[in-house]
Amino acid sequence: MINEIREPLKRLQKALPGCFAATVMGFDGLAVDTIEGPQDQFDITTLMVEYTELLKQAKSSAQMFAAGELEEVSLRSKELAAVIRPINADYFLAVALPARSSNQGKARYLLRVTAPGLAKVLS
Amino acid sequence: MINEIREPLKRLQKALPGCFAATVMGFDGLAVDTIEGPQDQFDITTLMVEYTELLKQAKSSAQMFAAGELEEVSLRSKELAAVIRPINADYFLAVALPARSSNQGKARYLLRVTAPGLAKVLS
Repeated sequence: MINEIREPLKRLQKALPGCFAATVMGFDGLAVDTIEGPQDQFDITTLMVEYTELLKQAKSSAQMFAAGELEEVSLRSKELAAVIRPINADYFLAVALPARSSNQGKARYLLRVTAPGLAKVLS
Repeated sequence: MINEIREPLKRLQKALPGCFAATVMGFDGLAVDTIEGPQDQFDITTLMVEYTELLKQAKSSAQMFAAGELEEVSLRSKELAAVIRPINADYFLAVALPARSSNQGKARYLLRVTAPGLAKVLS
């Protein structure tokens, strides 16, 4: 199972130049696996745990307001962009990128096509 | 002052086909002004108040992790997409759109170019 998660994460990280990290994480804030790029500017893992809370809140808001299942959250700050996509009720897929790269659209696309395969492994 | 906020919101709402609402809201969850499109599917105003909490959390995470000022948050669920952009420390600009429209990129762009003018009015 680990390779079926690690390999897609490696491909994601490699396909997005400058990608700080690609991770599959539980909504409990525990990472299943993370591929980190070469940087020591950000504590990506801890940041992702922070984002878990945020994502849980976004999920419950979407449901509460009949907006349907949450599909994607993107956050951009001055230095860092994150694209996060729920895989199923328990796990999400996320990448952290340099904010100034033009790869956020590509990241959105790659997460969209990668998530269904991970859903099969994590079901 | 109200017109200097209402007019840009009207332009935003008009420029984005199907736009459910465009709003300027304080981080305290109180709307300064909101232009709503013709729909009764979603309680957009209350949803935006929910998103205020989320945005505050995203802001503090970004700062805590030295990722720099938060610039944009996008959320997409099955039916509804929201693009939110802080104007300054006290206010943010947000639009809610049908999730299946292709206008989220346009919304991001329009929020980016509209926010500086609102920042002058709200300073």
